[in-house]
Amino acid sequence: MMCPTPLVARDKILLGHGSGGKLSADLIESIFLPAFHNPVLARLDDQGVVTINGAKLAVTTDSFVVKPLFFRGGDIGSLAVHGTVNDLAMGGAQPLFLTVAFILEEGLPMDTLRRVVDSLAGAARAAGVQIITGDTKVVEKGSGDGIFINTTGIGLVPEGVELSASAARPGDCVILSGSIGEHGMAILSEREGLEFETALESDSAALDTLVATMLAADGRIHTLRDPTRGGVSSSLNEIARQSGVGIEIEESAIPVRDPVRGACELLGLDPLYVANEGKLIAMVDAAAADAVLAAMRSHPLGRDACAIGSVTAAHPGLVTMRTLLGPSRIVDMLAGDQLPRIC
Amino acid sequence: MMCPTPLVARDKILLGHGSGGKLSADLIESIFLPAFHNPVLARLDDQGVVTINGAKLAVTTDSFVVKPLFFRGGDIGSLAVHGTVNDLAMGGAQPLFLTVAFILEEGLPMDTLRRVVDSLAGAARAAGVQIITGDTKVVEKGSGDGIFINTTGIGLVPEGVELSASAARPGDCVILSGSIGEHGMAILSEREGLEFETALESDSAALDTLVATMLAADGRIHTLRDPTRGGVSSSLNEIARQSGVGIEIEESAIPVRDPVRGACELLGLDPLYVANEGKLIAMVDAAAADAVLAAMRSHPLGRDACAIGSVTAAHPGLVTMRTLLGPSRIVDMLAGDQLPRIC
Repeated sequence: MMCPTPLVARDKILLGHGSGGKLSADLIESIFLPAFHNPVLARLDDQGVVTINGAKLAVTTDSFVVKPLFFRGGDIGSLAVHGTVNDLAMGGAQPLFLTVAFILEEGLPMDTLRRVVDSLAGAARAAGVQIITGDTKVVEKGSGDGIFINTTGIGLVPEGVELSASAARPGDCVILSGSIGEHGMAILSEREGLEFETALESDSAALDTLVATMLAADGRIHTLRDPTRGGVSSSLNEIARQSGVGIEIEESAIPVRDPVRGACELLGLDPLYVANEGKLIAMVDAAAADAVLAAMRSHPLGRDACAIGSVTAAHPGLVTMRTLLGPSRIVDMLAGDQLPRIC
Repeated sequence: MMCPTPLVARDKILLGHGSGGKLSADLIESIFLPAFHNPVLARLDDQGVVTINGAKLAVTTDSFVVKPLFFRGGDIGSLAVHGTVNDLAMGGAQPLFLTVAFILEEGLPMDTLRRVVDSLAGAARAAGVQIITGDTKVVEKGSGDGIFINTTGIGLVPEGVELSASAARPGDCVILSGSIGEHGMAILSEREGLEFETALESDSAALDTLVATMLAADGRIHTLRDPTRGGVSSSLNEIARQSGVGIEIEESAIPVRDPVRGACELLGLDPLYVANEGKLIAMVDAAAADAVLAAMRSHPLGRDACAIGSVTAAHPGLVTMRTLLGPSRIVDMLAGDQLPRIC
């Protein structure tokens, strides 16, 4: 039942190795962890947490290769800030500093770079993070694709905060901060030139103030994760696996806006596997759930927050969902490369 | 005299924008600094230095796009560790942690990735740095070039250490840790399929223990810089400009090994502009120069260390060199893209 993944040939990198699903997990387990093994990395959280001279720091890195560079609701510059700020926030850290490294393709219009840099700078200012060092490399035309950006973030974890994907406990309430699938479908519709009646817009946003609001309301939050690549289903599977718990969710409780639902139906996609860039999943002690939910709903980025299920001691490592039609089904991690290059 | 750079059209990114020379400086001054402005970044050192909860941390980021991936003396994996460890070391910091982010091209042989990851892990172990978090993205075949790696490093700056490219002072002795041009010429000969009688080998190495040895010998070191992209000439120009001093060097004092000299002559290159990955330049109080030099020569990576010139109050911002033939000439920053993708 623990998904031995019978996938295609393993001797070459596939697009799916960057999807955040099974193949990504494979790569981490078979190549990166054995080579780099250490206890910080082995936690497999979205951020490494280390203590330097008594300061507990969260550190996270992400490269952004989103295509197209500009999309409704954001661009690669703002995304590069939000993605990294959010990975810090999911560790409960206050984001402080970013590094920014560009890989540019020869021939890139200078105006495009300027727009991206201005957007990145604006998003950093809005999130209150300073860009403290950077790097630029240029590759020949045809050896890159316009702009790739790496951002690495450093944040300070407050005293007493210990969030981890390994920390979910049976009895926890599973909370989702809002409707899902908007980032992935916005990118996809832009890329494929699809026009829908209602425009799809990315939910890309910095979640650090939402997290601070939640932690201030009640500290009994065990796990936070932003369901980006691989969507809600992959994040829940990671938590179930790393915490050694089962997770049961209700399909009817998961908010999906009409344009996303429509586009997903048209394209044969399941919104549970589509990326978000401004949403989070929280595993919260049941006794704290009401207070945390109320605090989330008081924040603009958590207005539609809702409980979508619970953590169980039954079937550890598995995520199940009671469907709209009644019966439960297993919700697996994303397999393959449903939506490459969405971040 | 301050080099108003009358360069080619400015509306597109050129390979030279990644060269570490004039065009790179241009891009930083015209696009990045105005957008991201803050005091940490404005120092324009190879590392940002920030204080968190009393701990003084150096942070640096670099993307590696070297071509080919494997070369005599190293590969993109070991280089990604050495480059970032050295940028920390140039701030006098003890390197502690690295983040590693891969951008892989679809179709990359898994064995190639494995070799690079193993080399990267080995170099990190040797340098005593832990890899605490990572990321992997995959782009379609033709949208990347095998493997790009970003490493971001965090180090601890010891009490009392204040190195900066802005801190060189008239009267300082200019020290070079060894012979120059080996990394760039090794890459170039590999890339162009050139065969020389004596094999050219990259000098790629982690310089943190050499720096620690130097600082232990005498703390009166003002500036350290590793002359990578753009070579010794570009690093000296950056220091001259940022410190507002003149620098005078002696061509006869600069060690260049025969195979590098031969290859440079054949290809019409000046070793002063060729990249190094295991060398450093130090601006040292004249009273401390002998002690620092002796300490360097006791270290395997500083055996050939030598004084190559001095810092002067005359002609601030300019680097001049007394040539082998007698007269002095101005040594400018690298213009254009002599050697793209050497790191």
